[in-house]
Amino acid sequence: MIRANDPKIKSWVNIPENSDFPIQNLPFGVFKTKDKSPRLCTAIGDQVADLAVLAEDGFFDDLDIDKSVFSQPYLNDFMALGKTKTGAVRNRLSEILDDDLEEWDAKELADFFLHPQKEVEMLLPVKVGDYTDFYSSIEHATNVGIMFRDPENALLPNWRHLPVGYHGRASSIVVSGTPIHRPKGQTIPQGADQPVFGPSRLLDFELEMGFVIGKSTDLGQSVSTDEAEDYIFGMVLFNDWSARDIQKWEYVPLGPFLGKSFASTISPWVVSLEAMEPFRSPGPTQKPEVLPYLQYSGKKNYDINLEVDILTGKGTQKTITQSNFKYMYWNMAQQLAHHTVNGCNLNVGDMCASGTISGPTPDSYGSMLEISWRGSKPFAISEDEERKFIEDGDTVILRGWCEKDGTRIGFGECKGEILPVK
Amino acid sequence: MIRANDPKIKSWVNIPENSDFPIQNLPFGVFKTKDKSPRLCTAIGDQVADLAVLAEDGFFDDLDIDKSVFSQPYLNDFMALGKTKTGAVRNRLSEILDDDLEEWDAKELADFFLHPQKEVEMLLPVKVGDYTDFYSSIEHATNVGIMFRDPENALLPNWRHLPVGYHGRASSIVVSGTPIHRPKGQTIPQGADQPVFGPSRLLDFELEMGFVIGKSTDLGQSVSTDEAEDYIFGMVLFNDWSARDIQKWEYVPLGPFLGKSFASTISPWVVSLEAMEPFRSPGPTQKPEVLPYLQYSGKKNYDINLEVDILTGKGTQKTITQSNFKYMYWNMAQQLAHHTVNGCNLNVGDMCASGTISGPTPDSYGSMLEISWRGSKPFAISEDEERKFIEDGDTVILRGWCEKDGTRIGFGECKGEILPVK
Repeated sequence: MIRANDPKIKSWVNIPENSDFPIQNLPFGVFKTKDKSPRLCTAIGDQVADLAVLAEDGFFDDLDIDKSVFSQPYLNDFMALGKTKTGAVRNRLSEILDDDLEEWDAKELADFFLHPQKEVEMLLPVKVGDYTDFYSSIEHATNVGIMFRDPENALLPNWRHLPVGYHGRASSIVVSGTPIHRPKGQTIPQGADQPVFGPSRLLDFELEMGFVIGKSTDLGQSVSTDEAEDYIFGMVLFNDWSARDIQKWEYVPLGPFLGKSFASTISPWVVSLEAMEPFRSPGPTQKPEVLPYLQYSGKKNYDINLEVDILTGKGTQKTITQSNFKYMYWNMAQQLAHHTVNGCNLNVGDMCASGTISGPTPDSYGSMLEISWRGSKPFAISEDEERKFIEDGDTVILRGWCEKDGTRIGFGECKGEILPVK
Repeated sequence: MIRANDPKIKSWVNIPENSDFPIQNLPFGVFKTKDKSPRLCTAIGDQVADLAVLAEDGFFDDLDIDKSVFSQPYLNDFMALGKTKTGAVRNRLSEILDDDLEEWDAKELADFFLHPQKEVEMLLPVKVGDYTDFYSSIEHATNVGIMFRDPENALLPNWRHLPVGYHGRASSIVVSGTPIHRPKGQTIPQGADQPVFGPSRLLDFELEMGFVIGKSTDLGQSVSTDEAEDYIFGMVLFNDWSARDIQKWEYVPLGPFLGKSFASTISPWVVSLEAMEPFRSPGPTQKPEVLPYLQYSGKKNYDINLEVDILTGKGTQKTITQSNFKYMYWNMAQQLAHHTVNGCNLNVGDMCASGTISGPTPDSYGSMLEISWRGSKPFAISEDEERKFIEDGDTVILRGWCEKDGTRIGFGECKGEILPVK
C-alpha cells in the first residue's frame, strides 16, 4: 500500500467530520495570500499547507528536488518531476502531518506553513496547454441522441468503437469561484431561416471530470492503455459550461466552438491518481468488443460520487443531480490510448475532460439539458423557483468524492456564478 | 507610408532576383546555429540577421525594449511588446540594412550578425497557446459539400452567416522541414459495419494560411472587426495535414480530431501585417448581409499568391495547384470578431488558420481531396507517377508571396515529408 493511503494514519491537524481532505488525500494546488506570491500547497482538513515553506525548511531535502518547483504559479514543473518524486512528496507530507511521527517536528512549525483555506486565494492549478473534451458517458450520448436525432438510433455508428472527442479551448479554463458572464452569440430561432444575435438563452453546465497530463510524449509516439496511467497525474472536477442555442446553430459540420469556448471551470485541487487507488472500479461491459489498441486489463474506472447544486440569486440552494464517475463507458486509459494512437504528442499540463457524466436515471443526469429534457420539464429549486436552464445570478456547484470504509477522498467544490451578459 | 515598406529602399545585402525577402519584407523568425542558442532573427535575401547580436550591439537602444526578448526561443515576448515597438524594430532593421544610411555602420558588422539561411536551423517561431482552424473558403466548403453531402445544398445553412471554425491541436504544430510519420487510426471500409485499424490510406495536405495573435484579451472581452488587426501580429503558411479516412469515421458529431491532430506544419517566417499593407484586397461580396458584429469597412483581404508542389520520393517535383488568399469569403477581422464575440479570451501566440484556400477552378484547389475529386481523378506528377493522395516519401511544399510594382513579399517555404507509418 502507498504509505499516504494508509487509512490508519491520523493527522495532528484537526480534520472536520466529512472533510474532503483527510491525511489520506493530500491533493495538490496553487494558492496565494496577501503577503505571499503564488506557490504550491496541499489541503489538510480546513487548512492549506504551504509546500514552498516546507521545502525551504528542508522537509524535502533528501528527495533530490529543486526547491524552486514549489514556488511556481502552476503545478506543471512539479508534475514533470515524475510520479516517483511527486509520490515521494505526497508520502513525505503524510509523514509531516502524521500525529504518530514526531521526528518531523512539523507541529511546532504549523503557524509557518498552515493557513485556513478560507483565508487564502486558490488559483488555477495548471497551466493548460491543450484541452480535449471527450463524450464518454453512454447515458449522456444516448440522451442527446434521443433529443436531437433519432430515438431508435440514438448512438451514432462510431460511438461504441472509439471514445469520441474534440479539441476545446484551453485559454478560457478558469478556477472555481471565477464569475462568468453569460455569452452572446448567433442563434437561429425555431422555424426561422435567418440567425439573430444576442445573449444565449439556453445556458447550461456539464458535470464532468478532467485529468491532467503529468508526462510528455514525442510527436509520433503512442501510449498504450497499459501505460496510460503513468501519464495521468491526477484529476479535477470540470464544469464544461455550454450555450446550447449557440452550439446548435454553429456545430455542423466541425463541432462545438463558441457554444463552449467562453469558459470552463475546474476545481482548485488536483487529486493524484495514487490517492484514488483504493477506489478503482470495473467499467461497463463494452459491446461490440473494441479494437485491440483500446482493450485494457484490470479496473480502470473509479468510483467517484458526483453531485451538482444550484444556488439561486435569491439564495436558495438545491442538489439537482447525483451521478458517479464509474458509469463512464470509456475510461481514461482508453481515452489516452485513442488520443495518441495517431502520434499526437502530449505536454505536461494538457487537460482531458470526460464529457458529461450522466447516470442511468433522470436524477443522475449531468446537464440541465437532460434534467429538463430540452426545457420541456422544468424542475423546482424551491416552492417559488423553477429552472429549465441557468438564469443570471445562479451559482453552479459541482462536488465529488470517493468514500469507502470510513475514508473519504474529496475534490472540494468547483463553482461559478453566471453574471448577466456584459 | 511605413518606412520599411518604401519600395525605393535598397539593401547593402545582396538580394537575389525573385527573393521572398527584400528589405521591404523583414519577417520575424527564430533560429539557432551550432554555437548559438535560439534567438530572434529576420530574413534578408538569402541571409538571416541575428536580432540578439544587433540588440547587444546597441542598435535598438533608443527603442525602450528589454534586450532579453531578442534572445528568446519564441517570438511571443517580442510580439507582446505591441505593434508600436515591433514596428519600430522593423523600421530600424530597414535603416540598418539600407544601403543609403551609413550612420548605422552595420555593414562592417555583417560578419557578426548575418548568417546564410542554409547554414542555420530555423525553429518553430511561436509557442502556440490555442490553435483554431476556420473553414472560410467558399470554394473549398462548396467542393466538400458536393462530394460528401448534397450537390444541390453544398453549403450548410450556417456557412454564409458565420465563419465556421473549430479548435485544433496546438502541441503538434511543427516548423517547416519536420518529417511526419503517416498516422494510424480507425477507419470504416466502404460498406462495412465494423471499423478496422491501420495506417491512413487517404493522407492529404490542406493549403492554408495562419495568423498569429500578438495582443491578449481578458475573458469576457470581445474584439470588433475594426480593432481586429491590432491583435494580429502577422501571418504564416500553414499545412493542415489531414487523414481523410480517419476524419470521415470519427468526425460526427463533434468535429475533426485524430484525422488532424497528428501534425500541422507552418513556415518559419512570420510576415508582419505591416509588410503586407500594400497588398490589401477587397473581399468577395457577402450575401446575405452578415450580422452587424461581422460587418467591416475597408479592404480586409490580402492578395497573396499561393502554390503547392509535390516532390516525390523519386525526386520529381511538380506544382500541383495555384491559389490566392484573396479568395477567402471570411476575412481575418471577421474571424477574430466572431471568435471573441462570446467573450473567449486570446493569448499572445494563439494561432488561427484560414481553412483550405481553394480558388474557383480545379487548378486552384487547395487539397488533394479536391484536386483528385475524392480520388476519382488521379493526376500526373510525371510521365510515370500519378497521385490521388499523398504517398510515403512525398514532400509537400507550400509557397506564398505578395507581388506588385516590382516588390515581392514572400513567406518562404512550408514543407514536410511524409515518412512511412512508425
